[in-house]
Amino acid sequence: MSLLVVGSVALDSVETPFGARDNALGGSATYFSAAASLLTEVGVVGVIGDDFPIEELAFLRDRRVRLEGLEKVSGRTFRWKGKYGFDLNSAQTLDTQLNVFETFDPKLDEWARKADRIFLGNIDPELQLRVLDQVQNPKLVAADTMNFWISGKRAKLLELLKRVDVLLVNDGEARQLSGEANVLKAARAIAKMGPKYVVVKRGEYGALLLHGAETFHAPAFPLADVLDPTGAGDTFAGGFLGLLDRLNTTDVGALKQALVMGSTLASFTVEQFSMDRLRELSMVEVMARFGSFRALTHFDDLDAIS
Amino acid sequence: MSLLVVGSVALDSVETPFGARDNALGGSATYFSAAASLLTEVGVVGVIGDDFPIEELAFLRDRRVRLEGLEKVSGRTFRWKGKYGFDLNSAQTLDTQLNVFETFDPKLDEWARKADRIFLGNIDPELQLRVLDQVQNPKLVAADTMNFWISGKRAKLLELLKRVDVLLVNDGEARQLSGEANVLKAARAIAKMGPKYVVVKRGEYGALLLHGAETFHAPAFPLADVLDPTGAGDTFAGGFLGLLDRLNTTDVGALKQALVMGSTLASFTVEQFSMDRLRELSMVEVMARFGSFRALTHFDDLDAIS
Repeated sequence: MSLLVVGSVALDSVETPFGARDNALGGSATYFSAAASLLTEVGVVGVIGDDFPIEELAFLRDRRVRLEGLEKVSGRTFRWKGKYGFDLNSAQTLDTQLNVFETFDPKLDEWARKADRIFLGNIDPELQLRVLDQVQNPKLVAADTMNFWISGKRAKLLELLKRVDVLLVNDGEARQLSGEANVLKAARAIAKMGPKYVVVKRGEYGALLLHGAETFHAPAFPLADVLDPTGAGDTFAGGFLGLLDRLNTTDVGALKQALVMGSTLASFTVEQFSMDRLRELSMVEVMARFGSFRALTHFDDLDAIS
Repeated sequence: MSLLVVGSVALDSVETPFGARDNALGGSATYFSAAASLLTEVGVVGVIGDDFPIEELAFLRDRRVRLEGLEKVSGRTFRWKGKYGFDLNSAQTLDTQLNVFETFDPKLDEWARKADRIFLGNIDPELQLRVLDQVQNPKLVAADTMNFWISGKRAKLLELLKRVDVLLVNDGEARQLSGEANVLKAARAIAKMGPKYVVVKRGEYGALLLHGAETFHAPAFPLADVLDPTGAGDTFAGGFLGLLDRLNTTDVGALKQALVMGSTLASFTVEQFSMDRLRELSMVEVMARFGSFRALTHFDDLDAIS
């Protein structure tokens, strides 16, 4: 099995009520691959500048993440600066510097073209389409997007959605894309745009999966201390697709397990700043927390009451 | 088994983006007993004015709700007027008229004093304490409260909490009562004030139960059409305590089933204005939806991944 992610590798400056970090490792492809590589073979396509502290990615190499698709070009690395208040569900963006990402044109090598599963991180839908034009016959294509593309590149995004099997978005994005205030109506409207499966990520409230006429819900793991929610969504996507790739199926049972795995991995990311928790994370810890979602959500049948 | 509720029986005027109703049946004791009476024997203690359309309660009598404790006094019935926007999670209160509730002094008859389980709806903590002073030896005491009492009658509320087994509050109330922004920390802090079990209701995001060091989560049932969220919290409490009373236990398994039953019943309430949906609701429908929470939340074990 093999899983390709196309997205940003970034340096983030983040402030939350619990601390701050400057130029810490970030980016959608980074969080995604850090999570998914615990579960399956992952390759990254992205771009960094010549200022990028490459030793920061050593832990990904240790997890055998394929970094051959990570171009290094002259210039500064993509940077994001943001701030969270006590409502950790939404960040206030203070600054975005595309830098080398501005001229990024993803080029897939032989391995990447043949990947079984693809995750198109939150980048310009035109670039996401260019990636799809290069892949051969993937078993599953998943994508993320954001408000900026939903309003600014809607036609291209809709063209993309016809070619996507799974769309993963947060609830605000689902509402904006569909024009529906109700999250279930929003997910159903998005499914009509193309994706067979729609995942709505809701921060501390968990995630909802729409598959056909059915829904499945995974709560966020209840945590007393959330230090930095940055990257939770991409970690979630990494756990979700990482498990689907490992299990090599999209049957309903696997989709449900994958949603819980996404929620499991995301719960570790937010416990520390940047990728500090993901960096040291072991599958023993992951499996223990995955298992604890049963006590959190499962209940016994009830004898009939009439 | 027997379950006593003390709370308001009201006339609500409600506006949502999907319609409006004037002087419709409402009140915490009404929603609670409509839900709980599907599961067990319920008695109501409350007060109505001489303007109250008593025929509105016929369906409760049909469910054998004991209305002997519902005093009728001279004056106008308690009235609440509120409005919801597209965010149906919180109401804007436009008007509250306590009317006959202003001088309400709950008096419990023999049946009520001997009830197995008590739900103290959201009223003045002094009145809640006066009810507790009259009951004999209940197996379980549960209570609700709100921002008004948390800020205005904190000392009395804290006195009450020492005598309460279950506190059911929404997340804003949990935060205000505990001074903790994080919902898990908030629930833990509340448990230290007395209640063995803390239920945090989170509207469309479901509910969290804290029992000892453990948590359990029930999502809200995903609905495409929510017409009027009024009464969802009290319906939830009615389903939760109704099932605990019927099962006559508070073991962990029953608590989990009760949380799901609360969520199940609340999901019907919001499908229509006022008590229209609860009024006609059958246990066949309830058991079917309770069962569908399994497909919504349960997932298979995962083989070990190392």
